[in-house]
Amino acid sequence: MQLSLHADYSLRVLIYLASAEPAGRSVSTQEISVAYGISRNHLVRVVQTLAENGYVKATTGRTGGVSLAMEPKAIRIGEVVRGAEPTLKLVECFDRRTNTCPIASVCALKGMLREGLESFLTTLNQYTLADITTVRDRGELVRILQSA
Amino acid sequence: MQLSLHADYSLRVLIYLASAEPAGRSVSTQEISVAYGISRNHLVRVVQTLAENGYVKATTGRTGGVSLAMEPKAIRIGEVVRGAEPTLKLVECFDRRTNTCPIASVCALKGMLREGLESFLTTLNQYTLADITTVRDRGELVRILQSA
Repeated sequence: MQLSLHADYSLRVLIYLASAEPAGRSVSTQEISVAYGISRNHLVRVVQTLAENGYVKATTGRTGGVSLAMEPKAIRIGEVVRGAEPTLKLVECFDRRTNTCPIASVCALKGMLREGLESFLTTLNQYTLADITTVRDRGELVRILQSA
Repeated sequence: MQLSLHADYSLRVLIYLASAEPAGRSVSTQEISVAYGISRNHLVRVVQTLAENGYVKATTGRTGGVSLAMEPKAIRIGEVVRGAEPTLKLVECFDRRTNTCPIASVCALKGMLREGLESFLTTLNQYTLADITTVRDRGELVRILQSA
């Protein structure tokens, strides 16, 4: 069980933007890609999802870039994951249309897994982006991200 | 985010064995493979993991088979998942040796994800195999699995 790269990178982009100085600076995907050493092409799609979900503003063109559209303390980590994961169908019976497991109609496991998934997201929703970027180590976080 | 097929199939094997009648009957992987319409080769590896974790007894040879080694009410669903998932490393920084994310040393996200994962497993551990197989619908569950 792993987060998708799409969700992982979504969180990294938000952390980068909330650590950018001066605050609110518009940042290119190229800059984020270099800072983390990850694919710029993938980041472009990640930024698109984040924009669709209202977390970032993206402008195109030569001077274009990405910046936060919400305050870090208003961005709940569980909601970011819920919006960024291509699928939260833990097992095939979460999707009736494609399910092949014959016992789905009488199996209590599905409800248990759904409850587990909600616990996971609820726990993450106790935290916001500010709990990652407005911390004692902020100076070091900014230094690492800017030194790439 | 999805459970691995290995964990999914592990749970299916346990459900099958706890639904087998008469109780405690030794079952071939072939029989389980037909009941669910899933790969027998994969089931062989799944049974191996379940045996290593003490959930089943497996005997080989022509009359060999698999049966539960524990009471269904003693088998906690979260523990089965923990033992069956090839990885519970939600993101790359869960493994220091292979991590490439430069902010890992100062990033609070990792602890949040760990806490979320523990909430997921703790919620599943509120339930046992008996909560799936000793239920009102048991008759229907047994009928479906035996009719394949």
